[in-house]
Amino acid sequence: MSSKRIIALLTDFGLQDAYVGVMKGAISCVNPDLQTIDITHQIPRQNISAARFALMNAVGYFPDETVYLSVVDPGVGSMRRGVAIQIAEGFLVGPDNGLFSGVLSQSEGLMAVELTNSKFWLTLNPSNTFHGRDIFAPVAAYLASGIPIEELGVKIELDTLSNLPIREYQVTETEIIGFIQYMDGFGNVITNIPATALDNHKSWWASVGNLAIPSGLTYNSVSVGEMVALIGSHGWVEVAVNHGNAREKLNLYTGDLVTIRF
Amino acid sequence: MSSKRIIALLTDFGLQDAYVGVMKGAISCVNPDLQTIDITHQIPRQNISAARFALMNAVGYFPDETVYLSVVDPGVGSMRRGVAIQIAEGFLVGPDNGLFSGVLSQSEGLMAVELTNSKFWLTLNPSNTFHGRDIFAPVAAYLASGIPIEELGVKIELDTLSNLPIREYQVTETEIIGFIQYMDGFGNVITNIPATALDNHKSWWASVGNLAIPSGLTYNSVSVGEMVALIGSHGWVEVAVNHGNAREKLNLYTGDLVTIRF
Amino acid sequence: MSSKRIIALLTDFGLQDAYVGVMKGAISCVNPDLQTIDITHQIPRQNISAARFALMNAVGYFPDETVYLSVVDPGVGSMRRGVAIQIAEGFLVGPDNGLFSGVLSQSEGLMAVELTNSKFWLTLNPSNTFHGRDIFAPVAAYLASGIPIEELGVKIELDTLSNLPIREYQVTETEIIGFIQYMDGFGNVITNIPATALDNHKSWWASVGNLAIPSGLTYNSVSVGEMVALIGSHGWVEVAVNHGNAREKLNLYTGDLVTIRF
Repeated sequence: MSSKRIIALLTDFGLQDAYVGVMKGAISCVNPDLQTIDITHQIPRQNISAARFALMNAVGYFPDETVYLSVVDPGVGSMRRGVAIQIAEGFLVGPDNGLFSGVLSQSEGLMAVELTNSKFWLTLNPSNTFHGRDIFAPVAAYLASGIPIEELGVKIELDTLSNLPIREYQVTETEIIGFIQYMDGFGNVITNIPATALDNHKSWWASVGNLAIPSGLTYNSVSVGEMVALIGSHGWVEVAVNHGNAREKLNLYTGDLVTIRF
Repeated sequence: MSSKRIIALLTDFGLQDAYVGVMKGAISCVNPDLQTIDITHQIPRQNISAARFALMNAVGYFPDETVYLSVVDPGVGSMRRGVAIQIAEGFLVGPDNGLFSGVLSQSEGLMAVELTNSKFWLTLNPSNTFHGRDIFAPVAAYLASGIPIEELGVKIELDTLSNLPIREYQVTETEIIGFIQYMDGFGNVITNIPATALDNHKSWWASVGNLAIPSGLTYNSVSVGEMVALIGSHGWVEVAVNHGNAREKLNLYTGDLVTIRF
Repeated sequence: MSSKRIIALLTDFGLQDAYVGVMKGAISCVNPDLQTIDITHQIPRQNISAARFALMNAVGYFPDETVYLSVVDPGVGSMRRGVAIQIAEGFLVGPDNGLFSGVLSQSEGLMAVELTNSKFWLTLNPSNTFHGRDIFAPVAAYLASGIPIEELGVKIELDTLSNLPIREYQVTETEIIGFIQYMDGFGNVITNIPATALDNHKSWWASVGNLAIPSGLTYNSVSVGEMVALIGSHGWVEVAVNHGNAREKLNLYTGDLVTIRF
């Protein structure tokens, strides 16, 4: 196994317990030369939508052939499938519960298998509560070490993969109606409206509640403490406060409406 | 020094300050090729019991010969000893204050030394407040690089190592009386009753306060929001809420009683 | 590019979002063999002073030639420069907003460049909001891989680098008047008075508010729950509570006065 792909990890395990460390231990037991990179382990507990967003925006910033080991898995131990999916940018490994559907809305799935080959598990008798350690981590490690995806289990049809759709934004002649899909730790408010939706408009502003928020190129386009709407680093329309926290200032929640007007 | 063992880290330093990073810097100064894996750095401050639990359940999921660098050290700078202990699964390095006694209740100690050889310290004059950086990290790095444990200091008798006992569970013909030894970030409530204690019983339930909690195989054995008792991934009897937080729902504390009935 | 310097990361990105992981992905895209070490990502948001302190105290504990990639960047997208600075201990990469001025008060700058050479950026069109990913991370990766600092952009005079001065402590014959420059996660209160300022005095105590706090060599110099003033692992006079939290006990804030008396 000469290949040494990177394993990028995304979970809702938090960093308080030993769960993440133990998954990395399981990876090292398969191949101690593998390198892991944490995307985040602080997805809100069991929040598949937040995981879907974070993973979708991280894939593509890692080297080709990276294995994205993603475990937000409230259905662990139930009948939900464990899967590995090949895409142009690498491989996705984790539970088939919709968390990969954001990535798959941007990158075509090339092949998918259900993880049925226990030869690549930590144990023939995996626990009912921690497939991250017992199945997904070692499988990701074998995949990162060069084992072909086909060997990990039975092939499944890509269109049978679980899909977690998000509400679409709506475009009219005078406005785009979107909603908040994520708010980051800085309090920046990220909508579901992509930069591409604005393509024909140079002058625009955002409306949240009854507030009109001017657009700008950077957080510093406005004075300190003022609100600005801009294209964030994810490529989505974002509402922010220069040197401040838009989520707190506007008391916003995921799912709230944000309208773009021209 | 051709050996390249993994160093697994467990501390109560948190991630807010530079302490963990600086320990890893000290490791890299000894041998930049060493790989570190974080078990956790969010042990509650100065809580040796929590460290004892987390380390005991993590050892064994890492490759053989891993060096477990563990620093929860409220007695730093006092007369407590610094030690390195060899076990079948690898090596334990840190303060001799009982944090290793959970591991040692499961894995026999093979040899122990007090860390008296300052040749392997960061400096001949270590600080009085940060032995993690000045003594334990460089010692762990030398050990991981192949230096024999005997060279790190004077040999000590294994039975002189500090022991932090936990209360035993009690078994009668009709019940097992245990207590809560840990609650994880998901709110899962982990008792001190091992799966092995249930061996002869197929049908059982847990009693907490005046609540009867059915047993199941997975979190999903019950409806969303319902309580279930099961064998957790650590191998202990655990009380959980499907898609929820048992600690919050039941308002439980470490040390509270949990009884298993048949 | 055979060189393999370590990249030590310090940001205010937190660990909740994918920002840190994506920066590491960008590093791996340049050179997958590079090793990164997190100093911390939990600098209080946009707090350049806290970043200045943490970085100043971490530099020097890493191998020579380490690249310190430091991104606390409230002015991202504005006219503030991105810079790389060579010092005896390695290289500093990040925004020129004063966060490096603590390090530079201890280690002489040897050379500095403004990061103008887009050949070493992730993209010719960097985002206006995430230069950590688009500029600083790939530049740090090239530097760590052996690209000479001069190639990263145009040379700038060292005395044009942004300086964030801290208030000086004042020495009289009977006392030293300092202030709190940082409080760590243990609640230890770290002043701006260096150990060297105490050189001629063996007997001293600290005064905070109207409390007199005895000096000691270790946290354990006093009884559990009692206050002690000591030289902390950073080399600064520090006020602590044995097995406790001085910040909470004394209700202190950064900037509060601490006086040393003899």
